[in-house]
Amino acid sequence: MSFSQYSATIPLLISGLKNLKGILAKAQQFADAKKVNPQTIVASRLAVDMLPLSKQVQIACDTAKGCGARLSDTDMPKFEDNETTLDELQLRIDRTLAFLDTLNPEGFEGSEDKAIVLAFPSVTLNFSGQDYVTQFVLPNFYFHLTTAYAILRHLGVELGKGDYLGRVGG
Amino acid sequence: MSFSQYSATIPLLISGLKNLKGILAKAQQFADAKKVNPQTIVASRLAVDMLPLSKQVQIACDTAKGCGARLSDTDMPKFEDNETTLDELQLRIDRTLAFLDTLNPEGFEGSEDKAIVLAFPSVTLNFSGQDYVTQFVLPNFYFHLTTAYAILRHLGVELGKGDYLGRVGG
Repeated sequence: MSFSQYSATIPLLISGLKNLKGILAKAQQFADAKKVNPQTIVASRLAVDMLPLSKQVQIACDTAKGCGARLSDTDMPKFEDNETTLDELQLRIDRTLAFLDTLNPEGFEGSEDKAIVLAFPSVTLNFSGQDYVTQFVLPNFYFHLTTAYAILRHLGVELGKGDYLGRVGG
Repeated sequence: MSFSQYSATIPLLISGLKNLKGILAKAQQFADAKKVNPQTIVASRLAVDMLPLSKQVQIACDTAKGCGARLSDTDMPKFEDNETTLDELQLRIDRTLAFLDTLNPEGFEGSEDKAIVLAFPSVTLNFSGQDYVTQFVLPNFYFHLTTAYAILRHLGVELGKGDYLGRVGG
């Protein structure tokens, strides 16, 4: 056995969020260079019925925050979804990272079998702690990270896979 | 400890690929309904310097296949990257799933510390077996899965998060 509930989630979420910060920094440079209103970038979508960049970042943060809080029985910090600039989205990520940094591996012990209930407006999902990690947290987190990346790539921001994966395999 | 090298990867990869099959099936229905040449769909991209749908599916498959083969010291089946239709991409996924089905958890034991070397044209990445899972396989797999989804969503294929996550939390 090589992964704990903690090691299978928190380090991955932290790396992903740090990479997302770098991606948003390149979006800011793009906005500056092109003299584009950054709010236009934050409101960009890939399809009219898909969520905009702001929401992709918010949900990536909330997936990470929710995972950390639920599996460790820690109070979940509440963030309002009111970011309209790239700077504000960076701050949202910083606040999420600061929360994840407060968590320690011991707090996650035994969370494999914990009942996790996610109530959405249209559906309620029931997971064991372990299934929550593999069936919800990881695919969902990377979904919103990648969609944020894809929105920016589609706009013309100069990004590559290295920005998404970060410095790995060194 | 709750995850082995096997359980942290293969079941997630299998679920993801099965969901991708469903997503491509909806793309086929869309092509049929709109009388669009499916080859146009397979060649679609989000940006001129991003990879097309075919390549996103091929890399998702290869990330899964490579993970299974490398961690279990199994010969890696070789697939030519010659798919030009949605049917052929479905077949690629089927062949990948068939390979993953041949692997058993015992074969992955001890792979945490195995040296994994990925040689790309521009860079060589060196991982431990465990870092390979968390820093490469999972983020990379979900990246290509999500990008395939995003390309199709952008074209107007009717897809929702449920198609990507699959039936979970039941």
